[in-house]
Amino acid sequence: MQSQQTVSLDESKEILDAAESKAQELGVPMNLAVTNNEGNLIGFRRMDGAKLVAASIARDKGYTAAAVKKPTEDLKEGSEPGGDVYGLQSTDDNRVVTFGGGIPLEVDGEVVGAVGASGGDVSEDIAIAGAGVEAFEASR
Amino acid sequence: MQSQQTVSLDESKEILDAAESKAQELGVPMNLAVTNNEGNLIGFRRMDGAKLVAASIARDKGYTAAAVKKPTEDLKEGSEPGGDVYGLQSTDDNRVVTFGGGIPLEVDGEVVGAVGASGGDVSEDIAIAGAGVEAFEASR
Amino acid sequence: MQSQQTVSLDESKEILDAAESKAQELGVPMNLAVTNNEGNLIGFRRMDGAKLVAASIARDKGYTAAAVKKPTEDLKEGSEPGGDVYGLQSTDDNRVVTFGGGIPLEVDGEVVGAVGASGGDVSEDIAIAGAGVEAFEASR
Amino acid sequence: MQSQQTVSLDESKEILDAAESKAQELGVPMNLAVTNNEGNLIGFRRMDGAKLVAASIARDKGYTAAAVKKPTEDLKEGSEPGGDVYGLQSTDDNRVVTFGGGIPLEVDGEVVGAVGASGGDVSEDIAIAGAGVEAFEASR
Repeated sequence: MQSQQTVSLDESKEILDAAESKAQELGVPMNLAVTNNEGNLIGFRRMDGAKLVAASIARDKGYTAAAVKKPTEDLKEGSEPGGDVYGLQSTDDNRVVTFGGGIPLEVDGEVVGAVGASGGDVSEDIAIAGAGVEAFEASR
Repeated sequence: MQSQQTVSLDESKEILDAAESKAQELGVPMNLAVTNNEGNLIGFRRMDGAKLVAASIARDKGYTAAAVKKPTEDLKEGSEPGGDVYGLQSTDDNRVVTFGGGIPLEVDGEVVGAVGASGGDVSEDIAIAGAGVEAFEASR
Repeated sequence: MQSQQTVSLDESKEILDAAESKAQELGVPMNLAVTNNEGNLIGFRRMDGAKLVAASIARDKGYTAAAVKKPTEDLKEGSEPGGDVYGLQSTDDNRVVTFGGGIPLEVDGEVVGAVGASGGDVSEDIAIAGAGVEAFEASR
Repeated sequence: MQSQQTVSLDESKEILDAAESKAQELGVPMNLAVTNNEGNLIGFRRMDGAKLVAASIARDKGYTAAAVKKPTEDLKEGSEPGGDVYGLQSTDDNRVVTFGGGIPLEVDGEVVGAVGASGGDVSEDIAIAGAGVEAFEASR
C-alpha cells in the first residue's frame, strides 16, 4: 500500500478564505480552486464579477499544480517554442495550464493538493494563490 | 436590455453551509454545488470521503436545474423510454442530469441559480439540496 | 489533513497476474485495469486477442468502482429505465460503467483502488475481476 | 490481405520491467506505456509517486510513436513555430506528443508497437523508454 495525505474540506475553506481576502485587498475578483493530491476539486469559489473563462482555468491550474507537483509558472519556459516540452499545453486532455497561478500544497515534501487562482493578471493570480498556500502552511 | 438577478458568492456560502450541515446530520458525505442563473459554478465543496463520481454530477445537477429552470427530479419521467423527451440525458454535452438532487433558487418567480447535491441515494441528495434552498429562502 | 491509503504498483501487478491467470483458465482474452483510490490508472494489460472496445471499458470499470465505492454491477438496476438513477450512464463525462466487471479494493472498510475487467460476457468479467480482488485480499 | 506483426502482452511485460528498472536506477518515478502497431495500449504502469499528468502523456507518447512510426523527439523541430508541421501537436484529438519519450518498436523494419515514458525531464524519459526498446531488441 501507499499511504498518502490529502487536503481536507476544512483546510480548503481556510485556504479559500485567505485567497479571497487577498483578492479583495488587491481589488481583483477571482476564481479560486483547491484540488486534492490527485488533482480533483475539493473546493471552488467564483467571486462576484469574476471572469467566466477563469473558472475552468482556476480549476485546471489546481489540477496541473497537483499533477505535475510544481507551480504552473515553472512550466512556462519549457512549454514555450524552443523549450524542452513545447506542446505540453495541448496534452492530457488540454487540462495542463502552463502559466502562473497554480501552486502545490506540500506537507513533509509531499504534494497533498494544490491551489489555483485565475481572474487577474498572472502576477495577481500568483500572489492570490500564494496567499492560500501561506495560510495552509501557517495553520499547520 | 435585460436585468438579471443571480446568486452571490456570499449567498452560495450560506447555502453550502446549510447543505453541508444537513449532510452531516444524515451522515452522508456529499459533493455540493451552487450555480448561478446561467448554470455556471459559483461554489463547490467535496466533503471528506465523498464519492468522486458525484463531484461532476453535483455540478451538473446545479447546471441542469438552472438551465431547465426546474428541479432535476422533474425530468425523470419525461426522459424515460416512452417519455416526451426521452434522450434528454445525452443532450447538451451530457450535462443534463435527469434524476433528483438539483433544485433551482428562485426570487420573485425568477431562477437566480441552483443547488446540486450528489453522494447519497436520490432521496438524500434531494433532502440535502433542499436544505440549501431553504437556507437561501430563509435569509431573504 | 485526510490520510488515505491507495494501492501500490507492486500490488497492482499481483492483482493483474491473478486476473490474467483466471482469464487464461476461462479461455477469454481480457483487458484488465487497476485504478487507485481516486480512480486513476495504476496498471493495465490487454491480453493477446482481447477486444479493443473493452480496453477503455476495463479502465472505466476500474474508474467507476473506485469513484462510486461499489461494484459496477450494483449500478445496473438503478440505472435501468424506471430506476432511481436512470441516466447515470451518461454522467461524469461518460466514464460511468453500469454493468458488472469493476470491483473496489478495500482495506479496513476504505476503498483504496479498484479492478476493472472487460472482454468476456459480464459473468466472466466479474469472475476475472473478482480473482484479482481475492489475490489482493489474500496477500494482506 | 495484409499481414501485420504486433507486440504481445508478454513482450510488453519485459519492456516495462526493463524501463521500470532503468527508472529506479535513475531515481525517477515514471508512467510507462507499451502500445501496439495501431497505437492502442497493451501495457501500462504508474510507478509509486509518479506524476499524474504524465500518465496520459506516457500513453500518448506510445500512441504517437506507433502512429507516426518514429520517435516523438523527431517531431519537435517540425512542430515548432516556423516548422513544416507547426500545429501538429493539436491534431488527432490532441493525442500527438511532440517531445521526446516515445520510441517505436521495430522488427525487420516494420513498426510493431511503441514505448512511452513520462515523469522525468525529457532526457530521462528518452533514456527510460530506450531501455524498454533495448530489452525488446535483446530478447529477439
